[in-house]
Amino acid sequence: MSVRIITISREFGSGGRMVGKMVADRLGVKFYDRELIQLVAKQSGFALDFVEETGEYSAASSLLYNLSVGGLFAQNGFAPDPLSPADRVQILQNNLIRDLADKEPCVIIGRSANYILRERTDCLHVFIHAPLAQRVQRAIEEYKIPAKDAEKYIQRKDKARAAQYRHYTDGVWGMADNYHLTLDSGVFSLERCCDVITGLAR
Amino acid sequence: MSVRIITISREFGSGGRMVGKMVADRLGVKFYDRELIQLVAKQSGFALDFVEETGEYSAASSLLYNLSVGGLFAQNGFAPDPLSPADRVQILQNNLIRDLADKEPCVIIGRSANYILRERTDCLHVFIHAPLAQRVQRAIEEYKIPAKDAEKYIQRKDKARAAQYRHYTDGVWGMADNYHLTLDSGVFSLERCCDVITGLAR
Repeated sequence: MSVRIITISREFGSGGRMVGKMVADRLGVKFYDRELIQLVAKQSGFALDFVEETGEYSAASSLLYNLSVGGLFAQNGFAPDPLSPADRVQILQNNLIRDLADKEPCVIIGRSANYILRERTDCLHVFIHAPLAQRVQRAIEEYKIPAKDAEKYIQRKDKARAAQYRHYTDGVWGMADNYHLTLDSGVFSLERCCDVITGLAR
Repeated sequence: MSVRIITISREFGSGGRMVGKMVADRLGVKFYDRELIQLVAKQSGFALDFVEETGEYSAASSLLYNLSVGGLFAQNGFAPDPLSPADRVQILQNNLIRDLADKEPCVIIGRSANYILRERTDCLHVFIHAPLAQRVQRAIEEYKIPAKDAEKYIQRKDKARAAQYRHYTDGVWGMADNYHLTLDSGVFSLERCCDVITGLAR
């Protein structure tokens, strides 16, 4: 297996983003997380916050659009726009991920990139997860989520990511089958996760 | 993480059993697959074939027992035996797995050992999977399943293992969260899988 692209999907608070950054630094390749959002915002004209939110959590808004706006148009005799703004962001994002993968070796965080690039044979698709207690700890310490809200916040994020994955890929988020490698960062340190990934990518 | 026990769950035809054997040989520890079945058969008095089948595929027979035999007893005014023969094999098997883990370092294949030993902190829980096409190939070449039946055979086995896992653990078989490490043996060679596992276990 000759690896050019590494996609890292992750549970919220698992440290997957940090693992990805370490992998990119160690391999000397580009790293796309927030950088991807900025590119999509620039291309689409949508606000950065909107792209950030819809890029990973738009399943609900896309469904709502189809039910409400679509229905409204149809009632009034207009052909409804089949694409919600969230769907448009998604399509732009998918095309951008394909372009980046064509262009040069890189690490891409989240955004169902494992699914979007599933036909390529030069990708390593990774999923990082950890037990809830450890993710709560990281959410409090690193993302400054108030301790009393952290657990609910994480569960809401996970649920939204799973819904997003199901909506756009028809698959189950976090099933081992979707990835070449999954790691529990609650058991292995982030450095160790990085070692395994770079070891398999070389 | 100090690892004494390695559990290897696997999709049928993924080569997970062979990976487990290689890991056990390399680490110089005991290997339990068919050996486990023989121990359960010996302890229970049940036939080897029955133990082999029910040890991994008894969810349906356990449910059927509860519906039919249990109902029959109840209709006739007897307290139904709450345990089917399959459940009895399962309980014996679970106790045996716990005993083996107490006794000495080892590699255990399948039988929801990851779930049974989930409270221990000295285990590495691994899941090996591979794309269907490669598993079909292995089923034909190594397990001598006729080519025309191989795909259906594999799907039936996977379905039964998933049902078994759900029945006895309430979890979803193959979800990354259930394991510390999952590997796609269709992308990495069995030797490479063995390298990663022994590397993380040391």
